[in-house]
Amino acid sequence: MNQTIETILKRRSTRSFVKRPLDREELKMIVDCALHAPSGMGRQTWKFTIVENREKIQRLARAAGEALGREGYDMYDPEVLIIPSNEKDSPFGMEDNACAMENIYLAAESLGIGCVWINQLRTICDEPRIRGILNEFHIPENHVVYGLAALGYRDDTVIGPKERTGRTEYIR
Amino acid sequence: MNQTIETILKRRSTRSFVKRPLDREELKMIVDCALHAPSGMGRQTWKFTIVENREKIQRLARAAGEALGREGYDMYDPEVLIIPSNEKDSPFGMEDNACAMENIYLAAESLGIGCVWINQLRTICDEPRIRGILNEFHIPENHVVYGLAALGYRDDTVIGPKERTGRTEYIR
Repeated sequence: MNQTIETILKRRSTRSFVKRPLDREELKMIVDCALHAPSGMGRQTWKFTIVENREKIQRLARAAGEALGREGYDMYDPEVLIIPSNEKDSPFGMEDNACAMENIYLAAESLGIGCVWINQLRTICDEPRIRGILNEFHIPENHVVYGLAALGYRDDTVIGPKERTGRTEYIR
Repeated sequence: MNQTIETILKRRSTRSFVKRPLDREELKMIVDCALHAPSGMGRQTWKFTIVENREKIQRLARAAGEALGREGYDMYDPEVLIIPSNEKDSPFGMEDNACAMENIYLAAESLGIGCVWINQLRTICDEPRIRGILNEFHIPENHVVYGLAALGYRDDTVIGPKERTGRTEYIR
């Protein structure tokens, strides 16, 4: 089994991070992997905003928590938040960004960096307080945010493989 | 740079395949990678239908071509077609399946197998003739098909890297 397949099979989400900055070269490599995901008709209409400031991440998390009525919501308090966004009227945006998210997950896993998919912004990213913060981050007004990637070195106890229950069928 | 990141950076879509069956162990490994993608709340509501019969693939391609008014449409005449499907009312189905598609792409790339994302079925998978074929493949009636993966050994001239034009911005 090659290392790519090994990484894919052992990837698990991380929901607890230590307070230690990520290696900046490794972070750039992860972002480069996001940029290399496939996109519908090769249009690459996405933008990746990388927030490396815990306080700014927590401001966004608090605003999201308030919009959703989830007290103390902290997006698992990560070291870095990658916010992929895409044009609201792109017919491919949601899938393009999901592929980029998977590349982020796998690149991080291969570097020993934990990652978790944050799904809370998609319905609320145009609420005024959230949009105000996205504006500060220079996320274009015509962009929507689907999933976000929270990243950091793992503070998890080692978790085993998750049971895979998806169905398969071969047609010959 | 590790092999996972190398695979992510060099992955390109393949649109021309040689007529040679895929190694079955490698195909099963690719499907296993699809099953190991992340899914919303870990629900894994997808199904992966693997069509290893060129004639059956072409029947589906012809039906899609007719529905779309594209004469001679052949889905690039692949050796194998993986059809990921998911529950129509899943709020996560489109993104779950896109992540699985990216795992298929990367696993295939790592094994020297070409892959291309076929996007033609999503709007027409309930047209009677298409649905009839999906029924023959035992794809559940309450499932929708987003992207499909066409796979085969490459008959491409070597293609270089594609320019990456996505924007990035670091917020500190």
